[in-house]
Amino acid sequence: MTDLGGRHVWIDGRIEPAHVPHISAFDRGFQLGDGVFETLRARGGRPTELPEHLARLRRSATGLDIDLGPSLERDIEAGIAALLAAEGLAGPTGDASVRITASRGAFAGRGLLPPEQPRPTVVIQAWPVPPTPRDHLERGLHLAVSAVRRDPASPLAALKTTSRADYVYARLEARRAGADDALFLTTDGRLSEATSANIFLVRGQELATPALDCAILPGTTRSWILGWAGAAGLAPVESSLAASDLAAADEAFLCSSVAGILPVTRFEGAPIGAGVPGPWTLRARAAREAFIAAPAG
Amino acid sequence: MTDLGGRHVWIDGRIEPAHVPHISAFDRGFQLGDGVFETLRARGGRPTELPEHLARLRRSATGLDIDLGPSLERDIEAGIAALLAAEGLAGPTGDASVRITASRGAFAGRGLLPPEQPRPTVVIQAWPVPPTPRDHLERGLHLAVSAVRRDPASPLAALKTTSRADYVYARLEARRAGADDALFLTTDGRLSEATSANIFLVRGQELATPALDCAILPGTTRSWILGWAGAAGLAPVESSLAASDLAAADEAFLCSSVAGILPVTRFEGAPIGAGVPGPWTLRARAAREAFIAAPAG
Repeated sequence: MTDLGGRHVWIDGRIEPAHVPHISAFDRGFQLGDGVFETLRARGGRPTELPEHLARLRRSATGLDIDLGPSLERDIEAGIAALLAAEGLAGPTGDASVRITASRGAFAGRGLLPPEQPRPTVVIQAWPVPPTPRDHLERGLHLAVSAVRRDPASPLAALKTTSRADYVYARLEARRAGADDALFLTTDGRLSEATSANIFLVRGQELATPALDCAILPGTTRSWILGWAGAAGLAPVESSLAASDLAAADEAFLCSSVAGILPVTRFEGAPIGAGVPGPWTLRARAAREAFIAAPAG
Repeated sequence: MTDLGGRHVWIDGRIEPAHVPHISAFDRGFQLGDGVFETLRARGGRPTELPEHLARLRRSATGLDIDLGPSLERDIEAGIAALLAAEGLAGPTGDASVRITASRGAFAGRGLLPPEQPRPTVVIQAWPVPPTPRDHLERGLHLAVSAVRRDPASPLAALKTTSRADYVYARLEARRAGADDALFLTTDGRLSEATSANIFLVRGQELATPALDCAILPGTTRSWILGWAGAAGLAPVESSLAASDLAAADEAFLCSSVAGILPVTRFEGAPIGAGVPGPWTLRARAAREAFIAAPAG
């Protein structure tokens, strides 16, 4: 792991070098994907929408019956500040992606049932955000449908767990298909989300996105966009959408905390709308980037 | 992790103390459940059906596009021997459960796409097998249906990945329902499997189990039982089964590599057959335990 040399990680209250071992092989995060996570952006040392991300981390953990303890929010806030400083990403020009991972912790026993008194492992990592690839902005993203389907009835559908093999698989599958990302459908055939982003469709003056019952993660950027749309003159609609709705949209875009808003210009090999990034997409992206740069402004 | 004191783990070719950190927080196994595993039993230092488990580990890894390298089988065989010796489980009375975990390894970057040249992390753990709880043998297991459903069309349905949050959830759900284990149905309503075991139904002279297209793991013990049944005078049948078939069965049992064959006597609160462990179940269990004790005999 020479490429981790000189870098750091925050783990359970301490800053440690990134290139050494940190985690027990007995950790249930490593053994069973028994954990939850959040990824967010920090500009100028300021984490964007941290309370929203921490609230979702708690909800995900509670969904798995993992008790993250009373001081989590305080610890994470201090941990992010310390890690960004250690990584040289806390200054006014710093632009970082931050990942918070919380597993159920190490377990001397075996099997799926957790120990009576688990002690969660909490990790924070940070990376500089590279410039968005020109292709992603000028050409737009190409999406392909994944063979993996999401079950809207699953009690874990809205939990951001570290059991992500499905998503890794779909991302590799998309690359094999020559696409930039995969789009999940639900087991009952509705649009769900991309591997790490929510999807929006512009249809006339309407901005449509799969509703919360479509096996999506309730994205923080998704919520922000739904608020922005009304003010910008687009009617926000959360509903059940079909793949044919995406194919017939005027514009489409993905949104996530780190990458922000990115245009989608092809779906299953065919152009969406004019096949170029649409005007509403670019307007939304600019508004979101401005918000991230100066959330209070 | 004081309860790991004095114990050992094998990791990437070395025996290490169990209570120290072994794994990078950047390991994709910890971050994303991006790994595969196997669990098997070793009696008298002899791993049961090791070639079958190693073949399935390879298949699971290949399904996720993880290349485990050419020396895996040799390394694991030597590693199990070294670890069982270190743990005092290699002697003639040793009875161990052994877990092999292989993740895609540490990754300095972020996101779902793996690095170009991943270096997998391979871990072996061993535990003494405790005596089977008397309740499990004399009273039998009680099963409840999980709210988690398995998609038989998923490309990952037959892969034993470390993305196990669904299974942990189901196991906790079963405990809340007062049951010993959860039973998954498929998204199209057929019987699938328990959280870490395959299921069999005795119906007259027939021994039925969900077919491979029912989103099950192709268990090594399941295969062994299908071979044993014919010789023992039961007709083995792999098919699509409904929850009502389980409720109406004469007997039912679960099977897995470590726990072997365990009777199922209640399903969703109602007795199966006479509500006590059935004669075919006990016969199958005895035959399997004899095989594990002396596989060549």
